[in-house]
Amino acid sequence: MNIKLVFRIISILMFIISFFLLFPTAFALYYDEIHEFKVFLIIIVCAVLCSSILFYLLKSDKKQNLSSKDGFLMVALSWLTASFIGALPFYFSNSIPCFTDALFETMSGFTTTGASILTEIESLPKSLLFWRSLTHWLGGMGIVVLTVAILPVLGIGGLQLIKAEAPGPSVDKITPRIKETAKILWLIYLGLTVAETILLMFGGMNFFDALTHTFGTLATGGFSPKNTSVGFYNSTYIDIVITVFMMLAGTNFILHYRMISGRYRSLLQDAEFRTYLGIFAAATLLISFNLYGFYETVGESLRYAAFQAASVLTTTGYATADFEKWPYFAQAVLFLLMFVGGCSGSTGGGIKVIRIFSLLKQAYNEMKYLLHSRAIFILKISGKTIRKDIMYAISGFFFLYIFLVLIVTVIVASSSQDVATSLTTALATVGNIGPGFGKIGPAENYAFFPDYVKWVLCFAMLVGRLELYTILILFTPVFWRK
Amino acid sequence: MNIKLVFRIISILMFIISFFLLFPTAFALYYDEIHEFKVFLIIIVCAVLCSSILFYLLKSDKKQNLSSKDGFLMVALSWLTASFIGALPFYFSNSIPCFTDALFETMSGFTTTGASILTEIESLPKSLLFWRSLTHWLGGMGIVVLTVAILPVLGIGGLQLIKAEAPGPSVDKITPRIKETAKILWLIYLGLTVAETILLMFGGMNFFDALTHTFGTLATGGFSPKNTSVGFYNSTYIDIVITVFMMLAGTNFILHYRMISGRYRSLLQDAEFRTYLGIFAAATLLISFNLYGFYETVGESLRYAAFQAASVLTTTGYATADFEKWPYFAQAVLFLLMFVGGCSGSTGGGIKVIRIFSLLKQAYNEMKYLLHSRAIFILKISGKTIRKDIMYAISGFFFLYIFLVLIVTVIVASSSQDVATSLTTALATVGNIGPGFGKIGPAENYAFFPDYVKWVLCFAMLVGRLELYTILILFTPVFWRK
Repeated sequence: MNIKLVFRIISILMFIISFFLLFPTAFALYYDEIHEFKVFLIIIVCAVLCSSILFYLLKSDKKQNLSSKDGFLMVALSWLTASFIGALPFYFSNSIPCFTDALFETMSGFTTTGASILTEIESLPKSLLFWRSLTHWLGGMGIVVLTVAILPVLGIGGLQLIKAEAPGPSVDKITPRIKETAKILWLIYLGLTVAETILLMFGGMNFFDALTHTFGTLATGGFSPKNTSVGFYNSTYIDIVITVFMMLAGTNFILHYRMISGRYRSLLQDAEFRTYLGIFAAATLLISFNLYGFYETVGESLRYAAFQAASVLTTTGYATADFEKWPYFAQAVLFLLMFVGGCSGSTGGGIKVIRIFSLLKQAYNEMKYLLHSRAIFILKISGKTIRKDIMYAISGFFFLYIFLVLIVTVIVASSSQDVATSLTTALATVGNIGPGFGKIGPAENYAFFPDYVKWVLCFAMLVGRLELYTILILFTPVFWRK
Repeated sequence: MNIKLVFRIISILMFIISFFLLFPTAFALYYDEIHEFKVFLIIIVCAVLCSSILFYLLKSDKKQNLSSKDGFLMVALSWLTASFIGALPFYFSNSIPCFTDALFETMSGFTTTGASILTEIESLPKSLLFWRSLTHWLGGMGIVVLTVAILPVLGIGGLQLIKAEAPGPSVDKITPRIKETAKILWLIYLGLTVAETILLMFGGMNFFDALTHTFGTLATGGFSPKNTSVGFYNSTYIDIVITVFMMLAGTNFILHYRMISGRYRSLLQDAEFRTYLGIFAAATLLISFNLYGFYETVGESLRYAAFQAASVLTTTGYATADFEKWPYFAQAVLFLLMFVGGCSGSTGGGIKVIRIFSLLKQAYNEMKYLLHSRAIFILKISGKTIRKDIMYAISGFFFLYIFLVLIVTVIVASSSQDVATSLTTALATVGNIGPGFGKIGPAENYAFFPDYVKWVLCFAMLVGRLELYTILILFTPVFWRK
């Protein structure tokens, strides 16, 4: 392993995080939050110093490449570093006086989970609320992808890193050069950010609220600077804008790229996207049907159903209604959506539509084999053949996902939580969703969990965001064998 | 397809079921239940008549074989026929006046689920309670296996049938001839039945109670003729006997055969059995630890923990304690066990230990591939190589299992049940367990569900008992294509 190079890249990442800390610092200045301004400034100075020292100490003349082992280690360490640095402003400003809580909030931000330990969100200084939402935005597209996009430090190995971080079983290359791909992804992300912010401001939000809610939407994060989340505005227009952008964020960004390039047909040819839309439509209809009589008009039922369905499906976690007060069938549909997640190559978490879709097709193939044991059935998705080894990886992922969720369930339950709360806490953190059922419903928060549970949930969020293998592989003996 | 032959075998099965109906008829006579005696007699006469007519009408001179399609159809129809005939005594004796309920109870019996719609079990005539338990015993080892064992009607195709019915991904052949294997399995089953009945009678049970509880234990069923299940006796001795026999019933019967043949070492070499014992021991210890202070002594905690752990793990469903009153951690451990099940080749249901174990090993192999993409890692269990196509079938099974559980959850929730009740109802029926959490806890029953849910649950129990593929394959277009 090339530990030196790994830490050198980490030092660059520290620098990037420091750079992004300048934005909340500016907000602190703008909103006259002098105490927070000082805290941010000190943290930035320290981080830049550390990063520079590390960078020069680890200088090397040789042109170096990262092995796959280095890649996994580097991505894992990047996320840990980002979360630790990111937690400092909350902690040192005394806004979140307990470090575990500060780390939980930041990890929840970077992993785009959106689970919060804050009981009174609006009492936080604006600059910290902005930083809280910015962690979503950075984590959504991936901090390592960002590093790859910005810096020419990596020769070969970039794709390896993106694969270790990026969501979904396959990252199609848009361009032959990985750096170009990373740049295009970030540009689309930026474009969507500008678009949603403007649209939300049209709906009456001020710039601060529009921007932070946009971050939460596009990263499929779910942090809102309001105690009552998006429900605060009670505006049909805002609900629709956010619903649409949640769905866009949960779409494979390569499809966005194709749309921009004018290849409209590819959208309809994409089996994953069609399935994703189908699940959303079916869930929305089933829920609105069940909500008949709960809201005054059919339109309102549709509005709340679509928002909550998109929020859970894309693993965002925003709320405009306390779905725990809904009839049970609607709740069960949302519970089902907790097992799905966004598309591959999107900012959404969860198991991902492509995996569910492939596994269904594969299970069907298995039945065909039972009837014709000597035939060969090829698994095709969107016209492309899915290789057997990819199917293996997908099956392995699905099993590990359920396994991890159940283990986390038992650990959460050990702090005396009922089965429904424990299970949905596990689903909501491993899937990077945010709210669940029972004591962590959309009107609740994660503050009441004891510290050890919060640490386990931090781990669960990270493992979920980095698609299990990247983190879990570090715990295998095979990884550390020479 | 050879529909004629399929129905001919069904007619034999009807005859076998009629034969077994003689036992409750004898009990009816013994307990002076004249009304039930008449009902049983009429049903037997009708069934024998139907079966004979069918058998002779479908006579054929040619020696015929079953294709794999015929096999699936025949097994599915066998179970449906058995359940329909089995429901008649409950219905016509007016003990269960609603046919849906009667069918549910019988399906729950044959599939060894043990979910009951009876609110007042002890008020039923003894002969019907005996029949109720006998359905467990017949379904436990498999009514088709029984047919194969008894009758020389099938040339080739017997293994096909057993595979479609028998639990677990692989049925090792004990003897080269499938009929011999089926006979040996039933003889072991019979031997264990005699042993447990005698042991329970030593503990103070009368013959009737001992026999019915034995049926429920060895089939991993869970029907008890007592309202409070095994808890009625409140005897440490009885608890221990039943715990041990539940664990024996959840063990691969091939291991029993090897033990009888003196091959003791094979027990310890069997990875599935070791894992199975390990899970049981870990669960028992974790639960007893959590129950500290709940019961008066450590011994009592262990006794109740071991019984409930074995009951859920083996998918029996007997209860000596209302685990819904236990602390949440203990409940969560039991919830976790609901995802496991017995060993392959046992009478237990669920996903089965071997599948969980293989999937874990496979997931670990996937991580190795991430590090050494060009290497080849062979999956070995108990020293035997697991072929890739078997691993595929196992992954497909696991996915379909979870998928089915979630779909059933949503359907149950549509009858206004909360998420915990709905989910565990789905787990308890697909896994053939019986009790779950919420409104179907060990002190509750399934009576309150509306009819359409009961029909769906009947389907779920059957699909679970026949290991998904056998039933689900009938719903694929590929099955019905020429």
